[in-house]
Amino acid sequence: MRTGAWLIGARGSVAVTSMIGALAVRAGLTGPTGCVLESPALRDRVRPGIGDLVFGGHDVTSVPLEKKAAQLAEAGVVPAALARAVQGDLAVIERDLRPVPAAPTQAATAAAVAADLDRFRREHGLDRVVVVNVSSTEPVPPPHPAHATLTALRAALDGPGPVLPPSALTAFAAFESGCPYVDFTPSTGARLPALAELALQRGLPYAGNDGKTGETLVKSVLAPMFAQRNLRVRTWSGVNLLGGGDGANLAEPGANAAKAASKQRVLAETLGYAPQGDTRIDYLEDLGDFKTAWDLVTFEGFLGTAMRMEFTWHGCDSALAAPLILDLTRLTAAAARTGRSGPLTDLAFFFKDPLGETSHGLAEQWRALCDLIDTLAPQAEG
Amino acid sequence: MRTGAWLIGARGSVAVTSMIGALAVRAGLTGPTGCVLESPALRDRVRPGIGDLVFGGHDVTSVPLEKKAAQLAEAGVVPAALARAVQGDLAVIERDLRPVPAAPTQAATAAAVAADLDRFRREHGLDRVVVVNVSSTEPVPPPHPAHATLTALRAALDGPGPVLPPSALTAFAAFESGCPYVDFTPSTGARLPALAELALQRGLPYAGNDGKTGETLVKSVLAPMFAQRNLRVRTWSGVNLLGGGDGANLAEPGANAAKAASKQRVLAETLGYAPQGDTRIDYLEDLGDFKTAWDLVTFEGFLGTAMRMEFTWHGCDSALAAPLILDLTRLTAAAARTGRSGPLTDLAFFFKDPLGETSHGLAEQWRALCDLIDTLAPQAEG
Amino acid sequence: MRTGAWLIGARGSVAVTSMIGALAVRAGLTGPTGCVLESPALRDRVRPGIGDLVFGGHDVTSVPLEKKAAQLAEAGVVPAALARAVQGDLAVIERDLRPVPAAPTQAATAAAVAADLDRFRREHGLDRVVVVNVSSTEPVPPPHPAHATLTALRAALDGPGPVLPPSALTAFAAFESGCPYVDFTPSTGARLPALAELALQRGLPYAGNDGKTGETLVKSVLAPMFAQRNLRVRTWSGVNLLGGGDGANLAEPGANAAKAASKQRVLAETLGYAPQGDTRIDYLEDLGDFKTAWDLVTFEGFLGTAMRMEFTWHGCDSALAAPLILDLTRLTAAAARTGRSGPLTDLAFFFKDPLGETSHGLAEQWRALCDLIDTLAPQAEG
Amino acid sequence: MRTGAWLIGARGSVAVTSMIGALAVRAGLTGPTGCVLESPALRDRVRPGIGDLVFGGHDVTSVPLEKKAAQLAEAGVVPAALARAVQGDLAVIERDLRPVPAAPTQAATAAAVAADLDRFRREHGLDRVVVVNVSSTEPVPPPHPAHATLTALRAALDGPGPVLPPSALTAFAAFESGCPYVDFTPSTGARLPALAELALQRGLPYAGNDGKTGETLVKSVLAPMFAQRNLRVRTWSGVNLLGGGDGANLAEPGANAAKAASKQRVLAETLGYAPQGDTRIDYLEDLGDFKTAWDLVTFEGFLGTAMRMEFTWHGCDSALAAPLILDLTRLTAAAARTGRSGPLTDLAFFFKDPLGETSHGLAEQWRALCDLIDTLAPQAEG
Repeated sequence: MRTGAWLIGARGSVAVTSMIGALAVRAGLTGPTGCVLESPALRDRVRPGIGDLVFGGHDVTSVPLEKKAAQLAEAGVVPAALARAVQGDLAVIERDLRPVPAAPTQAATAAAVAADLDRFRREHGLDRVVVVNVSSTEPVPPPHPAHATLTALRAALDGPGPVLPPSALTAFAAFESGCPYVDFTPSTGARLPALAELALQRGLPYAGNDGKTGETLVKSVLAPMFAQRNLRVRTWSGVNLLGGGDGANLAEPGANAAKAASKQRVLAETLGYAPQGDTRIDYLEDLGDFKTAWDLVTFEGFLGTAMRMEFTWHGCDSALAAPLILDLTRLTAAAARTGRSGPLTDLAFFFKDPLGETSHGLAEQWRALCDLIDTLAPQAEG
Repeated sequence: MRTGAWLIGARGSVAVTSMIGALAVRAGLTGPTGCVLESPALRDRVRPGIGDLVFGGHDVTSVPLEKKAAQLAEAGVVPAALARAVQGDLAVIERDLRPVPAAPTQAATAAAVAADLDRFRREHGLDRVVVVNVSSTEPVPPPHPAHATLTALRAALDGPGPVLPPSALTAFAAFESGCPYVDFTPSTGARLPALAELALQRGLPYAGNDGKTGETLVKSVLAPMFAQRNLRVRTWSGVNLLGGGDGANLAEPGANAAKAASKQRVLAETLGYAPQGDTRIDYLEDLGDFKTAWDLVTFEGFLGTAMRMEFTWHGCDSALAAPLILDLTRLTAAAARTGRSGPLTDLAFFFKDPLGETSHGLAEQWRALCDLIDTLAPQAEG
Repeated sequence: MRTGAWLIGARGSVAVTSMIGALAVRAGLTGPTGCVLESPALRDRVRPGIGDLVFGGHDVTSVPLEKKAAQLAEAGVVPAALARAVQGDLAVIERDLRPVPAAPTQAATAAAVAADLDRFRREHGLDRVVVVNVSSTEPVPPPHPAHATLTALRAALDGPGPVLPPSALTAFAAFESGCPYVDFTPSTGARLPALAELALQRGLPYAGNDGKTGETLVKSVLAPMFAQRNLRVRTWSGVNLLGGGDGANLAEPGANAAKAASKQRVLAETLGYAPQGDTRIDYLEDLGDFKTAWDLVTFEGFLGTAMRMEFTWHGCDSALAAPLILDLTRLTAAAARTGRSGPLTDLAFFFKDPLGETSHGLAEQWRALCDLIDTLAPQAEG
Repeated sequence: MRTGAWLIGARGSVAVTSMIGALAVRAGLTGPTGCVLESPALRDRVRPGIGDLVFGGHDVTSVPLEKKAAQLAEAGVVPAALARAVQGDLAVIERDLRPVPAAPTQAATAAAVAADLDRFRREHGLDRVVVVNVSSTEPVPPPHPAHATLTALRAALDGPGPVLPPSALTAFAAFESGCPYVDFTPSTGARLPALAELALQRGLPYAGNDGKTGETLVKSVLAPMFAQRNLRVRTWSGVNLLGGGDGANLAEPGANAAKAASKQRVLAETLGYAPQGDTRIDYLEDLGDFKTAWDLVTFEGFLGTAMRMEFTWHGCDSALAAPLILDLTRLTAAAARTGRSGPLTDLAFFFKDPLGETSHGLAEQWRALCDLIDTLAPQAEG
């Protein structure tokens, strides 16, 4: 049941926090707070467990894990004592991190990625490797005719120019190597017809997109509340102030627009209409890994009475995302084991922009997750 | 299908807002925003409809409905134009309002109440009358041995002293008169073993307690969110600032304690543990019918990272409660029609302190409500 | 002492609210809440009084005052009863409203404006007319060499092309007609060297810019607090959600940038450094004349401890601005009477972007205002 | 110019944070953020400097300073690296901490306190020792006839029963020993006629009461803003959620009432009337040294328009108080040096409940402080 978690962006805050956390939980140094699969309702239902995960990954930077861990401790994301306690284990993981391959054609690059995945699986004797994208958000890529079919895609990848954005190329390589793929970012990932075709051909599942860790999580319970009470939401406006690497990236207009749209989608789909208002993302370097979101909801009740609600969410994105990385790796591995292939729409609970036609209300997403878990019972493997 | 809505506290803000609203909706002057049974998901599923309701009731005060309507318009709770438009219809209802009967023994008082109900049913040719308590919150009554069984209760009611608090005496009279009973307040209402016995004996349903209109409504979606994400809530503190008649009443320590406890119950039952913190209720006469609640939630994520959430809710209690009065009258009448008796635990969606052992999470309560409605289909009557 | 208040944008929300208010205060129908000169500390210190003001003005629209008053009542900005009570008086003012003149050259347009001002002064036998700009915010105009000197300006105005933006052309006309000028908007107004020259030549005072009515008002007391306590502000971010005509206008990127910059200026000038963060302005039509601003301040205390403050301001811009229009007309008229000319830097208390090198802290601005008033004592006129 | 800072409650969070901070600033390890006398406007104006302070004190507990420092680092109040860096210096201070003396009569206890002060002054060759109370808030003491005059007080202190609460007995001992006294708590301290008499007799100044570190600080700038703009505050309600030792203490109803009253005083005195609403203090152990306050202000503008403002303050009480302890010790020492005696009403800037009839507006208090500092110029000593 030993399962590989191959992280794209393996030296980033989310990845390193999830490694430190998994190591610390395994060593009994801390509890699994924030891990959905370790909540009282779901504990011991899904294998692999946290202790079964083996970490590796790609990253464009080369900052040592130990240094990154120290930075996270400095920033208040992980306790300094924990970061020190798992230092030795991080050094072991360090050996399984690789630079992002770059070759003359995207086909060759994908082959190099797949080779890294194969070696990782082989060297650690892993049952399965799940590729998880936690790298920075990409700009929305231009459309390309080769995205439409697998045949066209394979042909185009052999050419000199870029056909796929990096996240999609990684998904391609993962599928080629027999690995399920999870995209925790708003990037393209596996969301292209050609890649869906490949995943089905190989019988592999994939999950995404864009982890739901803060403001959107709250929206996904408040919006159904307004809908069920038949209260008319007039305006819903939000602002997200965030620092950290992804903050700078998201404040860039292209990425910002993609993210903001994904953040408002939950409203239209849950309420049945789109209230006035937008979600803004502003970069404030000084906030570091912490994020503050403020939302104002104005709504109308019986006889048109005007009412309002505000909320402020002050969270640490890495701390909120990291345990979900462990959950998603485990769930996707378990789904692959039971033969699921194609988009795992029943993992919408974890995502701002879930795959497939699915409810955006958290409660229904939770039920879908519980139903999925019922089908993943460990004994299924035998 | 004409159904009586007999309101206890019929000249209060909630009652008069619900009357004005029902009349205005019926006349096509406004929409049914805030009425759960008129939301897209549930529309046309439950009979009686809003147009089938006939209003009457008891009140200790004698302020004319027309005057109360003008006050509500002045206070911004109902539009002045609507209040004027339904003036004639309110004058008709006025004829069916009675002072609260008072007799030498509680048995005699109950008989007088029942006589009022009987006359109301007869004069209007109603299929059924639902008694709904929207009067001021009572202090918690002292226990009395006669509360335990119906036999003991009947005997005690013939004596000179008070045995039941007013809300419970009303429930007794309602059941004696064959009427279902709904308690929208935190008062005792039907929640005594002797009354449960009586309701079953007569085959009558009842619902309650304590309408969920604001801060607790929000808690009932946020608390499950924290639980499902396995985030550890450390503290949850709230303050409710409210004016209006009920504000003054709730700021009285006895009533306050009852209400505040009912407001925190949702946390312990949904999270599985009780976080630190209390809910305060403070009376600010100047706020009138509007209420502002502020809640601070501090919680712990992965590796113990400290995070927090705040929300402010600025609502109009009468405008939030009034449409639910219409919903509850309709649902309870429909349940009675299909032969339901005893506590309607499937109406927990509407209450802060629901009857029976039932989930406090709004999503599960919503499902229970939808399931109930499936059994109430109008054709069932034939 | 009868003084004209000639409003540019005389049919807009701010102008009409100030007219209704002045009429209602004069008639004893309401108190002067929000009028700084009527606060206990300053009452009866400055003449003209509210009762001495006579209203007239220009507007590009032709919506009747009575209709605008009804809209303001509908929107909750003025009480409906007040709007009705002053209907007759508004009809009188209506006769003194003129369309904005338009002529082949800006010189001719200015002459037409001045002619309107002269006629108004003459017909009502006014001691003095103060021109007050409360029209919509203009985009930042392109620089023009003729802005530098009065001679160049006069020459250029005779040409066919536009030289001055409307607000500056109005200031020019006001000065030519012997009228002091107040700019309550962020537009250019009198802030050009050529116009400063003209004002001095004619011995006329002027005041501005950009009325301080909400978020910036709060900033102007909080920023000095942080400075005096030597707490280091790390970030200060704000979002302004507003509807109304000016909302749509300010959401337009050009105007937005001007306004947002003026909103952050108070920070750098009061703190002595510019913290990270921006002020956003978002248009939400549904909010109407009301505005909600949210600000987050993160700051550092002793030994670097991270702390934070948030505030939400929910105000009605017209109701906040209108009484200040009365104050500024009175103060500027009184200053003119005592022979003040040039920029009234001692009126910084009222403005987001005050004229001259002056403190942005409200407390110092208040002292400057009190000092000014000491020199304006009514007896000075004799 | 070496000056003693004798802290009552010397092992508490505020005291130890001020020691660590003074040592770290002196060693150049950190800057003086939060020290008012080190702000750009006041730097180098007052001697003694931070580096001239020598610490000692009394405490009822015996937790070693080093251990307390570690706890403060753990709680996020001081950086762990700083706490470690000053460990040696704390050990030196440790030698000058004494248990609180206890003797059969209060006269004898006071003599023992004075003896400790004398020895501290002598052993360190100090110019002057300032006694600063930072111990827990006392309940309001019962009145006693001996509080009225010094003669009566001296006689009563020789008796067996308690005459003075601990804070007042300390003030008595301080004055007897020739030491100025500062009370940073809401306790009685020097605020008794007999003690005022003694201070004047000995020519000693004193300062207090109740350090203004959070919500009240904000009120002291917002309330003048509303007053100056002639906006009518209708309600002002606050809730303070705090942990820490003082939290538990203040949640005790007696102390709570005293503190809450002192917190609302600023409103009545600044606005000229008391708006509806109260300030609540709730203890939440889990918050530790951090405190969250939320305030809602509803106010009325022109023509009665209803508006509102909310703020949340999330501060670390120890980090906010500690630098003010350094400021107050320096200022009181400098005032004593220039011959000031009696209540230092010009230090109102620092206190929630300032001595004397003085403005509660922060801006006026700031000016009073600056004026005081002008009289304390270091050269005055010669």
